[in-house]
Amino acid sequence: MNQNPIAIGIHGGCGTLEEELRNPDHWAEVRAALHASLQAAWRVLDGGGTALDAVEAAVVVMEDSEHFNAGHGAALNSAGDHELDAAIMDGSELRAGAVCAARTIRNPIRAARAVMEHSDCVLICGAAADQFAERCGMTPVPNSYFTTAQRRAALASLKARELAGTSAQASEAERHGTVGAVALDRAGNLAAATSTGGFNNKVPGRIGDSPIIGAGTYAANGVCAVSCTGQGEIFIRHVAAHEIAARLRYAGQGLEEATNAMIFNELSGHGIGAGVIALDAAGAVVAPFNTNAMARGWIGADGVAWVATHAQVHRAGG
Amino acid sequence: MNQNPIAIGIHGGCGTLEEELRNPDHWAEVRAALHASLQAAWRVLDGGGTALDAVEAAVVVMEDSEHFNAGHGAALNSAGDHELDAAIMDGSELRAGAVCAARTIRNPIRAARAVMEHSDCVLICGAAADQFAERCGMTPVPNSYFTTAQRRAALASLKARELAGTSAQASEAERHGTVGAVALDRAGNLAAATSTGGFNNKVPGRIGDSPIIGAGTYAANGVCAVSCTGQGEIFIRHVAAHEIAARLRYAGQGLEEATNAMIFNELSGHGIGAGVIALDAAGAVVAPFNTNAMARGWIGADGVAWVATHAQVHRAGG
Repeated sequence: MNQNPIAIGIHGGCGTLEEELRNPDHWAEVRAALHASLQAAWRVLDGGGTALDAVEAAVVVMEDSEHFNAGHGAALNSAGDHELDAAIMDGSELRAGAVCAARTIRNPIRAARAVMEHSDCVLICGAAADQFAERCGMTPVPNSYFTTAQRRAALASLKARELAGTSAQASEAERHGTVGAVALDRAGNLAAATSTGGFNNKVPGRIGDSPIIGAGTYAANGVCAVSCTGQGEIFIRHVAAHEIAARLRYAGQGLEEATNAMIFNELSGHGIGAGVIALDAAGAVVAPFNTNAMARGWIGADGVAWVATHAQVHRAGG
Repeated sequence: MNQNPIAIGIHGGCGTLEEELRNPDHWAEVRAALHASLQAAWRVLDGGGTALDAVEAAVVVMEDSEHFNAGHGAALNSAGDHELDAAIMDGSELRAGAVCAARTIRNPIRAARAVMEHSDCVLICGAAADQFAERCGMTPVPNSYFTTAQRRAALASLKARELAGTSAQASEAERHGTVGAVALDRAGNLAAATSTGGFNNKVPGRIGDSPIIGAGTYAANGVCAVSCTGQGEIFIRHVAAHEIAARLRYAGQGLEEATNAMIFNELSGHGIGAGVIALDAAGAVVAPFNTNAMARGWIGADGVAWVATHAQVHRAGG
């Protein structure tokens, strides 16, 4: 077959717990959730659908899973509330949509796409984002829909550390997490999507890199699609996703060189946890990260699904 | 003298009224306000101060002037309220701070700087931004402080056009406007700052490019400093300010080539009004725009101030 390649890559956040802190069944569950996300996207791509539909489908599955810091299972801010950020970008026409500090949108990535397709805006914040989603036909959920026992425990732990003056020792697992997807469709279109609850104990009103086009999310046909995870402030300052694209486009770097430079030189230099899933126009996927772990998965042209949380990569469904 | 060059460049928004629609005194007033902004920055730079202090000083003057769409004189959204966005970036360490959808901060650019210097965030939105500014010692103002008769008339005109179905004919003058500054200090540091009320009749919660690092505002030492004006959505999708920097850094383009490509090829292709003020590491200033007018001014190494609203450039204070 001489069909153009299709590919999907996803991440479920960098910096999770050490592997030995949970039993193997837990990690198998996370890998199964990653696989379900990949499959949702693959069905779209393999059926001739668009990269845009594929990244949305992949992210919705992770938003709906309690295992990831997005949608249900999102981080709690310091006030004990959820404020959700998401962005989607269609590399074919550099179209994009995003929401930030949303509180009642079950699937923020769907709202981001609606902003792109049904508004004159790229980014809508706060209650206006919630209201926009509702006008687009999305039934609002109470903010408590997003809460899980694990996130409540993480917030309590961080509050205790604050009182004890040991916040700096909070692990990445208590602090970060995001989900994202990048895809290439048969027509050669690239797309990227990112969704997050931010991080546990974040201050209300804080916006990270996920909904910022060029920082946490970027896609341009013929170049690459990128979704980031890690301490968002540093990604914003480095315009990280667009910087990776610029290195490919103008500096003659390959995807691996550009993403490694960003993660291991630029971002690691700030002492932060950082990871990225990225895909080039030929369908090559990379998933570099500088933390102990990053939930991730991909399916390349051969249709084989791979998933991982820590170092070991597993063939999924095999 | 062998001192390193210093320079300041400012814009007060692209797409104002046609020159003949106001009397010459009006335009002289606008030019005087631009000159005051330049002088405030120049005093900082000439005294050995930082580019960061200079861009903040320049923007504060324009925020306080009713002639520009930022701070006092900002645009009204469709609900008849002001929601203000601002960002500042220090090119020396790629530090940045921003606020969006702020409602009670007299000088949003000061709050953006406080976010950079006194928080762990880069971007804070909505009421949280207002509260943060107040905690930093900034006395809140009522939202009505920002309103001028001119903006009320512009909103009424746009609402009338909406009813008549002729919104598309609204002039750029009724729709856009932003202020921004870029500076180079004796130590070789570049900085950029942007502040805006968005555009008249914008939907509540809409965030434009001004507070988005890499889109409307960007600075990196040794490369360039950029502040944009025009329809923000398209600047976000093109990651315009960082794209200009990437062309300088990786594609071997000069500042004029890179900014002209962005304004006249990339952005004009969307049929939008667009302008930029940009400064390279050698102190060269460019101010390209594709509209009938862009309020702008600059002082280069020779210390001579130039200001303009339409085609003709005036020597200020001469």
